[in-house]
Parts: sequence; structure tokens; C-alpha cells
Amino acid sequence: MSESKKFLLNERDIPTAWYNIVADMDNKPKPIINPATKEPLKAEDLFPLFAEEVSRQEMNTTDAWIEIPEEVRDLYKIWRPTPLVRARGLEKLLDTPAHIYFKNESVSPVGSHKLNSAIAQAYYCKKQGVTNITTETGAGQWGAALSLAAKMFGLELAVYMVKISYHQKPYRRNIMSTYGAQVIASPSMSTKAGRKIITERPNYQGSLGTAISEAVELAMSTPNCKYTLGSVLNHVSLHQTVIGLEAEKQMEMAGEYPDKIIACFGGGSNFSGIAYPFMRHNLAGDTNIQFIAAEPESCPKLTRGVFQYDFGDEAGYTPLIPMYTLGHDFAPANIHAGGLRYHGAGSIISQLLKDKKMSAVDIPQLEAFDAAIKFAQAEGIIPAPESSHAIAATVREALRCKEEGKKEVLLFNLSGHGLIDMTAYDSYLAGDLENYKVSDEEIRRNTDKLEKII
Amino acid sequence: MSESKKFLLNERDIPTAWYNIVADMDNKPKPIINPATKEPLKAEDLFPLFAEEVSRQEMNTTDAWIEIPEEVRDLYKIWRPTPLVRARGLEKLLDTPAHIYFKNESVSPVGSHKLNSAIAQAYYCKKQGVTNITTETGAGQWGAALSLAAKMFGLELAVYMVKISYHQKPYRRNIMSTYGAQVIASPSMSTKAGRKIITERPNYQGSLGTAISEAVELAMSTPNCKYTLGSVLNHVSLHQTVIGLEAEKQMEMAGEYPDKIIACFGGGSNFSGIAYPFMRHNLAGDTNIQFIAAEPESCPKLTRGVFQYDFGDEAGYTPLIPMYTLGHDFAPANIHAGGLRYHGAGSIISQLLKDKKMSAVDIPQLEAFDAAIKFAQAEGIIPAPESSHAIAATVREALRCKEEGKKEVLLFNLSGHGLIDMTAYDSYLAGDLENYKVSDEEIRRNTDKLEKII
Repeated sequence: MSESKKFLLNERDIPTAWYNIVADMDNKPKPIINPATKEPLKAEDLFPLFAEEVSRQEMNTTDAWIEIPEEVRDLYKIWRPTPLVRARGLEKLLDTPAHIYFKNESVSPVGSHKLNSAIAQAYYCKKQGVTNITTETGAGQWGAALSLAAKMFGLELAVYMVKISYHQKPYRRNIMSTYGAQVIASPSMSTKAGRKIITERPNYQGSLGTAISEAVELAMSTPNCKYTLGSVLNHVSLHQTVIGLEAEKQMEMAGEYPDKIIACFGGGSNFSGIAYPFMRHNLAGDTNIQFIAAEPESCPKLTRGVFQYDFGDEAGYTPLIPMYTLGHDFAPANIHAGGLRYHGAGSIISQLLKDKKMSAVDIPQLEAFDAAIKFAQAEGIIPAPESSHAIAATVREALRCKEEGKKEVLLFNLSGHGLIDMTAYDSYLAGDLENYKVSDEEIRRNTDKLEKII
Repeated sequence: MSESKKFLLNERDIPTAWYNIVADMDNKPKPIINPATKEPLKAEDLFPLFAEEVSRQEMNTTDAWIEIPEEVRDLYKIWRPTPLVRARGLEKLLDTPAHIYFKNESVSPVGSHKLNSAIAQAYYCKKQGVTNITTETGAGQWGAALSLAAKMFGLELAVYMVKISYHQKPYRRNIMSTYGAQVIASPSMSTKAGRKIITERPNYQGSLGTAISEAVELAMSTPNCKYTLGSVLNHVSLHQTVIGLEAEKQMEMAGEYPDKIIACFGGGSNFSGIAYPFMRHNLAGDTNIQFIAAEPESCPKLTRGVFQYDFGDEAGYTPLIPMYTLGHDFAPANIHAGGLRYHGAGSIISQLLKDKKMSAVDIPQLEAFDAAIKFAQAEGIIPAPESSHAIAATVREALRCKEEGKKEVLLFNLSGHGLIDMTAYDSYLAGDLENYKVSDEEIRRNTDKLEKII
């Protein structure tokens, strides 16, 4: 291991505006539509569910820059700006001519990038007088971030946590309770949707789709209560762009510019966050950076899914979103990167991928853990299983550079640390994990069911 | 919660020398002595067990500044300098006129300050050609830090982990394995000392004393192998002074100077680290800062122990150290702050306390957790159960300031985060934890057994 080199900004360098890439896209994403009427939704249609400002941000296709409220920026100061690190230890271990940099979002108090949007969403709810909020969480990264954000603004929060995770990941549940949130294993008896499922299938261990249904139902049936979401939607990606905006300044400090930018991909929040600010220069024709989304081999919507309108949730309660999807009832294998177990991609990403403004690779689980261990031993930080997919894709690129004797500058986003996921490492080191490759037939079976709207 | 304010240094501000307080003490600590001859030990006497440079540092009473090797400083750059934070959220929650600052050592990749000494010790071993090192660990913070440090320098490491912790804290064990260390539950069959205990008491769950015996035996019986220790000894405190030296510069940035400096106390490593650099100005007569060590009520060596020569380990294999002690076979209650369950204090601290250069308070377990939850909700960071004792002592001072209507500047050391200790929080929130007050009789029973050397 050789020394790594951090590039640090001052608090005054925290961005003052988020970057809204839609404003700069020639081909705008297709609109989100009402499943019944197939009519495009307006911002007002989202008001009953989401905070009003967030609904407007979701539909904003014209303003490239949206000011970050001072209160949000002040709270970002708890951990932002985050470090950009030259991963000299990893470079040496791989013996590569590539220069590897990573943006370290794991330094947030909750251990991931999710807090960037959680704070913004809680702020907008508070500002319009909301008192209660709800959400769902799978692995628990989003739930933990929102629990802290809710406490910061004095909001009551109910988190529906997928039942299997509730029992398998007690540490994440305990983190949410410590911040003062109510955590409910989903399906639960607290909603009609939950009661129905429990009655029909008493031992059902839950899914993100069910948890979304419960959180939405609670929000809709509680006075002064709004629902929040941690990925997929445009406003979430928008809030995450602080990552890339900071990284841009830091690459300048390092005196280099990335040839390739790499991030793991679940719903798209951390990928968008690091990619969009750099991508604006590609869209303007000034740069030619390659953007690579690293998804799990077991949930390959970007590399093997279809481009079609689909629901955001398993149960089909959400509007229809234009997306690369494996079908909303696709059941991903039980990999440890719980945050990447999602059937679809947001509408912006899907359009960018369709227009070849970015590319995607899929990473087998064992390759992700192998890369994670290399990174931990070389750089000291134990990465989240999700983030390890970005590391694995970066290792591939670095080894290609070595083979080709080519110096390239690689930048990846370390979206979170893995300290709450140590049982996953234990299983890997014990040789108990496997790869899960999805068959063409399974993908076809799921996607064939989708209504052909596009 | 209001915004907190970070004070950040640059990498060039990482100290270039450690501060050796012994050189500035009028009353030097009494020497460590050989239990059989009662003769003071020389540095050479420690060479068979410890790295030579570390042994010399242990005995150095004349040089106030000891240069930090460039290789160590380079590795410190992975996470150092650490932030100093104005805890405005906590101030607001307590409604206190006090200004509260904390030094955030939880940002290291292993989550605590322990890495400051682990890197130095691994470096000195490597430099003299050592290939294997051993240590023991209780809760696992030191073991995790040394595992990473050993990997950085390509050393093989065997960690004897107290058996009960090995099973109760699998995450910490998994972290060590991920960094490539061998982790052995102690007592084990790999040493004579371990085999003897297992034969006599097959179900014995281990103790720090037994683990030390095993680690020492392995080091002494393995070619080219040295033993390392994570607290108590002078050289460990020395390495930790980077904490206080950075904090001093950062308080200057903040334009304030601490009236009181507070840290939790187990063996003394994090307390020494933040306190000694500031204390040198007290010793020189230039300042009048108060230093407060916060120990658990269940293990009150500083507030209720005796000052006497005692062994560093339960089994009595180490030299005799002049210390405030509860007796080396005192069995502390099973509190969650595992890192504070130690019977004695190092020789420097003990002399400073005897000479009233510092003071100590003892904190009940429930008060520590109550303070921890307040801090987590106000500042976002979930503290380690150990560090929560420092927070509780700080809360006491802040509330006293409120009562007296007095503005004081309080600085405490956040030695580590609690993300690996979430089951402790779960138990606290469920109402399952208790306080453990030690009786005078138990203390007397243990300390009466000590040979009266002083």
C-alpha cells in the first residue's frame, strides 16, 4: 500500500445550485404518464403525494440550475464537501498506468450519499408545513439517511422496511431507531395493503414494491403527511449532483481530467450524482468523457432490459415511467448489494442510455467482492457491496489500461462504506456466495407482459 | 438541529513530530520495574517483545518532540487531518451558553483513533525486518486498526480476540479478516497458555488478560515476530498526540481556546492524545485548562482506585507499572463500552492525576447512552459507547454552564463511531441496560491483594 492523496475543498466550495441535466438534453426524456389515461402528468398531479417544490423539480425541463436553499447547504456542511482521493494504493496493487480517483461519499454520518437528497426532501416538506413523512427502505441506506434528515427538521417519520431486511440487517434498523424514526417491518398490519398481503400470505417476507404501497397508503391517509423516495426520480438525481459538481473542482485541483466516470447503478441516484455535472460538457460538445454504469449481473436492466413504459413499483400503484426495465414484477436474486436490486432505471438515464450518451456493464457478485477486498486492503476503506460494483468496473478498466500500456484517468464514486454489511464479507470470505446470471427466458417472460406503449 | 461548523486543516498541517509529555514533567512517572528484582527496566529489556524504536520511545524521558517518520505521515494522510467540529446542534439541544467543540477521530477508515498508533507500530516493526506481529483485542477497535496497518506494511498479523467478543461482535472480527488478519478466539489451542486454560475450564469465554498472554507467548516463540499493544503504554500515548496537536491549530482557526478538555478513559490512549499537547502549556504555566477523564462507573480506577505498582495484565506476565488500579484481577461488569473495561491507567496519567494536573469523573452506563442518543440526533454521528462517556461528561459541564449562566469553551474527543455497536443501542432503546456501580468492598478486596511497593 502506498500513500493516497486527498483533494479537499472548503465549505464555501459546496455548490450553491444543483444541476438539472434535462434542461441541456436535446432529446428530453419521455413524460411520466397516468396509467389509466396515458396522459402526461403535471407537477400538480404529484402534490397529494410529494412536497410541492419537489414535484415542480421533478417536472422541470427548462432550468439547468436550481438554487440549493441556504438551510440545506448549511446541513450539507456537517460532512460536505467530501474528499476526492487518488487511489495510489489500488493503482500500485493492480500495477496499472491508469490514474484512479474516487469521490468518497461514505464519509457522511449515515455512511452513504443518500443524505444529499434526504435533507433536501425533508427541508421542502418542513417548509410547506408538513409534520409527518413516510418512506420505504430495502437494505436501509435510504431509510437511515431520511431518519437523520427528519430528526434535523423535527418531522415524524415512519419507515416501512422490507421484512427480510428488517430481520437480516438489525444494525440498519437500530440506526434508524437511534435517530428517532418509527421502523415497521413490511408487510405490516398498519395499512390495508399490508393487512391484505399478511392475510393471504402470512409468512411473506416482503418486497420493495409492497413497502412502497404501504408508505404511499399511509401518506395518502394521514393528515399533513407526505411520501418521499430515495432514488429513480428526477428530483432525487438533481439533489445528488452536488457529488459531481464538487468532484469537478477537485479534479481541477488534481490537475487531471477524467477519461471515464464509473458508478454503481440501482435506481440511479449515485450514478446521476457524479455523472451529470461532467456530462454537461459532453452534451455541449466540449469533452468526450465515457460514462459507465455498473449494475449487478443478477439485475441487468441497463444491459439486457427493454425500453418501455413501466411501473416504478411491483404492485403497480405508481405512474408509468419510460425506462429500461426487466418488468416491474422481476424478482432479483438475493444478492448482498440490496440497493441494486431494482427492476428499472429512471427516465433521464434511460433516455441517455438509449441515445448512447453513456454505457453500462454488468458485474457478477463474486467479482464485486473480489474488487472490494482489494480496495479495502489497498485504500483502507471497506466499501458497501453496492459501491463494490463500481470498484469492480474500475478494476476492469485499470487492467485493460495495463494490457494496452495506456494511461487513462478513471474516476469512480464510492457511494457508501460497508461497515453495516460485514456479514456479506464474512460469507464471501467463507466461500458461501455465488453468482446469479439471469436467463434470457426469465427476462423475456417478465418484459413480454408489459403493455407496448412505446 | 442547527448547522455545525467544521474546522479543516490541510495535509501539510499534519504534525511532523509527536509530543512526549514526560520530558516536560517536573515529577516524572515512576519507572516500570521487573516484578522479581524490582529493578527499573531499560529499553533493551523490552527488545525481545516490542520493536526496538518503540521500546526506546517507551523509556524516553528527555526528548519533548519525536519526529514522525515520513512513511507514517504519508499513511496518516489517508484520513488525517481529522475535522474539529463546533457542535452547534448539541449546544442548541441543551440550550447552553457553553461552546462545545469535538475532535472527530471517528473518520478514520477503521472508525477510531487507534490507527494513529497502529500505523506507527507496524512501521517500526517493518523497518527492523520483522515479518510477523501479534496482538490481543477486546471489543475489536485496536485489532481492526492493527489489521489494516499490518496489511499496509505487508506484515502477517495474528489477533487474539477475547472469545466472548469473537462471538458477540462478529462484524469487528469480519473487518479484521477483510483486511487479511488471522483472528483467533482466545483462549485457543494455539498456545500453551491457551491450552492450559481450555483444559482446565473448557467453557471459559476469555479475558483481555488471557488474550495478552497468548499474544505474548506467540510473539516470543515465533521467529521474527513482535508483540504490539494498543493503549496504556507511553509510546502509544505518544503516537496519539497527533490528535491534540491538530486540535490546537483548529481551535486557533475557531478563534477560541478550550477551558475544559474531556475524553473517555480506558487505558488512556485517546485521552492522552487530545490532552497532552494542550497540557504542555499548563505545565509551562501559560494556561489553566482543566482536563477531565471520563471513565465508566463500573470500572472506576481513576476516581476510586489505589496508586500502586500493578501488572498490566490479569495473568501477571507483564512488568510492574506504577498506576491507579482496581487490581489486575478486577473483573469489570459487562458494559457495552468494551474498550473502557480495563483495571488500570498508564504510568504518565497516573502521575499526572496524583499531582492534580488533571481530574476524572465516572459515568453510569445509562447516562452515557442518553448522551449518545442526544448527540446522534443533534450532530448526526452515532458515537461509540466508549466515546459516549466523554459526551456525557461534556453534557454535564454544558448543563452546569447553563445553570451558572456562564460561557465556557468545552472540547471533547470523539474517539470513534458506534456503527459496529448498534446492538448496544438496540438494547438501550429497549430498556434492557442497567448501571453497574462497584462496591467499596469489591475494590478493597482486589486492591488489598497488591504488594505494597510504593
